Amino acid sequence: MQNVNEDTITQIVLARHANAANPRLRQIMTSLVQHLHSFARDVGLTEDEWFKGIQFLTDVGHITDDKRQEFILLSDTLGLSMLVTALNNRKPVGCTEATVFGPFFVEDAPEYENGDDVANGAKGEPCYVSGTIRGIGGEPVPHALIHVWQADSEGFYDVQNPDLAENQARGSLHGRADGTFNFKSITAESYPIPHDGPVGRMLDALGRHPWRPAHLHFMIEAPGYERLITHVFRSGDKYLDSDAVFGVRSSLIANWQQHAPGRAPDGTDSATAFSTLDFEFVLNPARVARDDAADAQKTVSAAS
Amino acid sequence: MQNVNEDTITQIVLARHANAANPRLRQIMTSLVQHLHSFARDVGLTEDEWFKGIQFLTDVGHITDDKRQEFILLSDTLGLSMLVTALNNRKPVGCTEATVFGPFFVEDAPEYENGDDVANGAKGEPCYVSGTIRGIGGEPVPHALIHVWQADSEGFYDVQNPDLAENQARGSLHGRADGTFNFKSITAESYPIPHDGPVGRMLDALGRHPWRPAHLHFMIEAPGYERLITHVFRSGDKYLDSDAVFGVRSSLIANWQQHAPGRAPDGTDSATAFSTLDFEFVLNPARVARDDAADAQKTVSAAS
Ligand SMILES: [Fe+2]
Ligand SMILES: [Fe+2]
Repeated sequence: MQNVNEDTITQIVLARHANAANPRLRQIMTSLVQHLHSFARDVGLTEDEWFKGIQFLTDVGHITDDKRQEFILLSDTLGLSMLVTALNNRKPVGCTEATVFGPFFVEDAPEYENGDDVANGAKGEPCYVSGTIRGIGGEPVPHALIHVWQADSEGFYDVQNPDLAENQARGSLHGRADGTFNFKSITAESYPIPHDGPVGRMLDALGRHPWRPAHLHFMIEAPGYERLITHVFRSGDKYLDSDAVFGVRSSLIANWQQHAPGRAPDGTDSATAFSTLDFEFVLNPARVARDDAADAQKTVSAAS
Repeated sequence: MQNVNEDTITQIVLARHANAANPRLRQIMTSLVQHLHSFARDVGLTEDEWFKGIQFLTDVGHITDDKRQEFILLSDTLGLSMLVTALNNRKPVGCTEATVFGPFFVEDAPEYENGDDVANGAKGEPCYVSGTIRGIGGEPVPHALIHVWQADSEGFYDVQNPDLAENQARGSLHGRADGTFNFKSITAESYPIPHDGPVGRMLDALGRHPWRPAHLHFMIEAPGYERLITHVFRSGDKYLDSDAVFGVRSSLIANWQQHAPGRAPDGTDSATAFSTLDFEFVLNPARVARDDAADAQKTVSAAS
């Protein structure tokens, strides 16, 4: 007869999973149960605290819908999202590092040409973005597919505004044959993550603010290279050291150069101040390509 | 400048909680973040797996409402509820052990007298329950408030049937001055926990069934004693070794004696077969009483 108590329960639960058909699921659930139980033991979780946890998760579930994903916000604000990003995107030194995907990417955003204005009416100071996409050996990556998205100067993504009929401050374009690209948008500004829900209350109770340092999101895809999901962060932002979702990597910080009204990079005369940003992205070879290379290396080693 | 990577992120998150006003919250969140991150590292959680986890929690949140608490089911089926119960209800040997509260208790259930039928029309074989409530020293506990609740023979609690106007198979009564009590109900039968939602799918993927061995819930309160929340489990049940929520403790298993039709314990002639159950509950002194005793002991020690 089983006798469940605080010393035996963890092993009893794990033994119950011996029949799981999927070994990876069994591995994940074994670790999850061990850590969940260790957490309760380590802090001596009280029955009241357990119930507050149940209520908190219930609130997170109830505010979550097609537009608002509070569980992702929770994962982001506890650093889990960034940890998973880091674990799954180890790259050789010299490659552009990845950071969190975030909840604001949109499939089928408008397609643009080099030089176009992706802001499409979004509020903000004009910004001229240029860049180059290279491989780890320095070679230009031709015709990469580049997705960009960002918040407006009031701190909102287009998808957070139910009254907008068109996408703003987001789109996709292709780099040129020499790896370069450029587009016009708006200057990135810091913004708070949605904080009127349970995650906002959690941050408040923890003495934390909900702000993210100004950044521009990029997702870059090219055949033969690993897809890169990252941000470029704006140097000088006061939240660089306290990003609410822990996404800042020093290699991703760049200067948004400020310019007085006058001649803009596109040859027009800007009546307002504007900024310029230039950034070089370095892509990692795709996993398959790396495996091929490793195989070729092995063949060479075996032959020599 | 912070540089977040897989090696630094946990310490960066924990440092961010240094300003939490509530030291207990800081302690809990420190342990939670450490275990959450260790889990992701230990299994090398992939981005797809992370997203499946987000979707699973979203489903758990969306099926949860005033009547259905899928987060509690999740906690129960992962053994967390039983662990928290065990951690918070350590009792001296000889006391009746606690087990999980479960989601089916109801405030303000009907009040009954000793000898009454608490089934109130619930389907099932008649069962005559008798018992005694004592303290750890063997003394009878007079006039304890006894809450009982159970599923019917089809495996449902009254609160799971939206068409029922009255409570069935649940109620409260007071023990007599000599610590004894008795009531009529129905024979406890095994039943499955709600398994048509995400927790049911999880159990299925883990090769687990959703059944609980037959049991009768008790909550017993008396001045000067610690409240006892427990079940009595039915000996011989085929799920005693595989309770879906890990609540079985061998000290809580008792015999439901089966009887052919004939003279029942209440003096009536039962036209159907019936069962009888007798159980002795031993309550732990209340924490305050124990603290007083400890203080008295200290005073004695100091004086001697
Ligand atoms: Fe963002
Ligand atoms: Fe039950």
